[in-house]
Formats: sequence, structure tokens, C-alpha cells
Amino acid sequence: MSVTDELLANNAAYVAGFSGPLPLPPAKGVAVVACMDARLDVYRVLGLREGEAHVIRNAGGVVTEDGIRSLAISQRLLGTREVVLIHHTDCGMLTFTDDGFKRSIQDEVGVKPAWAAEAFADLDEDVRQSVARIRNSPFVPVKDSIRGFVFDVATGELNEVV
Amino acid sequence: MSVTDELLANNAAYVAGFSGPLPLPPAKGVAVVACMDARLDVYRVLGLREGEAHVIRNAGGVVTEDGIRSLAISQRLLGTREVVLIHHTDCGMLTFTDDGFKRSIQDEVGVKPAWAAEAFADLDEDVRQSVARIRNSPFVPVKDSIRGFVFDVATGELNEVV
Repeated sequence: MSVTDELLANNAAYVAGFSGPLPLPPAKGVAVVACMDARLDVYRVLGLREGEAHVIRNAGGVVTEDGIRSLAISQRLLGTREVVLIHHTDCGMLTFTDDGFKRSIQDEVGVKPAWAAEAFADLDEDVRQSVARIRNSPFVPVKDSIRGFVFDVATGELNEVV
Repeated sequence: MSVTDELLANNAAYVAGFSGPLPLPPAKGVAVVACMDARLDVYRVLGLREGEAHVIRNAGGVVTEDGIRSLAISQRLLGTREVVLIHHTDCGMLTFTDDGFKRSIQDEVGVKPAWAAEAFADLDEDVRQSVARIRNSPFVPVKDSIRGFVFDVATGELNEVV
């Protein structure tokens, strides 16, 4: 049995306790942008329940073009008004460089990615960079509350950067 | 008090019950790609615990360039080997078109996004499209288990598409 099959079996238990449909727009009007890291269970870390906040995640929790796309849809079509950014300690993005990662791919498969890998060397600086990218975008209209945090994987705590 | 402040207060309760650091690589070797929709609590839907799976999310759960970047890092640097894609019923991406969305932005702020909004008209077709984008990428090496589902927001159930 694959892990995916095991997760599907878990879904049956979720269905058994499911309490019916909720509205489409996030009830708390918040969009969270966080790293894909497995240890970061965003709903639990923030005490969110189903239906309350959009959750956007990728490698690093970096604000990319796709992040701007998602935030534009979140704010313009579904009414969110606050943004919470979450990076975290012990992040994989601190362990490599864009040049090295792309070189290894080029050496192995013969094609160099045309995209940035978005590795970074300083967590706080990258949180500030992600905030700056949102502030600089004409496509994300509501910029009153954009706050950035580092999640500590040793304590579960969110520490505010900006 | 902003909603963000309220979520930070929730974090204090999470910290109080936190049980210490877990390893960086996902224990179950799985990466999930899902929509940012607030009703889709990926950990609960799949019965995942902290540390078990990467979770990548954006508007639609569409595989974009940023999704390929995240999956490349997930597989090449952190050893995941299965991919689970999740779209869902009642998705916001079914309610608009790229042309209309980008026109409204251009009319309002004077700049037309150079990116695709990735709206879609058919859930199953877009799940298959996202799978096809992964299969077509030279940057995601492990393609043995790429399975796509639609989450039913009325029942909590995952229905397999491909």
C-alpha cells in the first residue's frame, strides 16, 4: 500500500466526522503565506478552523509571482484584508544556493531551470523581502496589515520580524 | 485588535502544548499540492501529523512554475516520492475568467498582469492538466505516484480523478 492509499484511508475517518459545507469566502478575512515545511501545520499554529483563512504555501514561504496571483485572487475576489507571512527556523532553503541547485539539475537532466530557486541565507531578511514584494505589487490592493513571522520549529512559537 | 493579533494569541496556546522539534525531511515522503481554499484543512483531510508531508498551496491548487519549483526542491533535496493533488468543489477559480479578471485589474490600476490567473471551467480537467504539467517537467524526477483528487466541500470526501 502506498502512502497515498494510507492517506485516503485516513480521509474516510475525516468524512465520518464532517459537519457540512461552509461559505467560500474566508470568515476571518486573512490570507496566510507560509513555507511548505511538513512541521508547519498552519491551522494548528494559528488556531484556525476550517473556512477561516486562505493558506498559500510553497518552498520557503517566499512571495513569488504565483504568490502575488494567489493574493490578488484572495483579496480582489474573496475579500481578504490581512496577510500573515510565515518562514521558519531550520528551513531547507537555508541549505543550498540557487546557482548550485540549478547547476545540479542542468548536469543531471541537461536543462537549466529558467526560474529562480529562491534559496536564501537569512530568514529575517527574506521575510522582509517577501513583505516588500507584496508592498511593491500593483495587483494586491489591501496593504494595511502585512505582517511577517519566523516560526520556531523547536518551540512552536511565532516571532515577529516585520 | 486585528485578526492577526487574535491568531498570535492562539499561537500561545499552541506553544504551551508543543512537543519539540522534528526532522526536516517529511517522514512520509509525500508532497501535497492543494488549493488555498479556507475550508481545505489538508492535515485533517488526509490525517497528517506535523512532520509528515510537504504542503504546497495556491489559488486553485494549480501546478504553476512555482509549484514545479517547490516539487523540485521537495523531491531533489528532501526526498519526497509521492505527489497528491487536491482541487475542490465550489472553487473560486470556477467563477471567473482570466480575461475578465485581468481586464478588471487593468481598468482599476492601469497595469495588466503578465501572468495567467489560472481560472478554469472544469475541475476534473484541471486536475488532469496539473498532473500533465508535472509529468511534462524535467525538474521533478520521481513520477511513479502522482494522483489527483477533488475534495467535496459538502462531505469532506476526496474523489480520485487521475
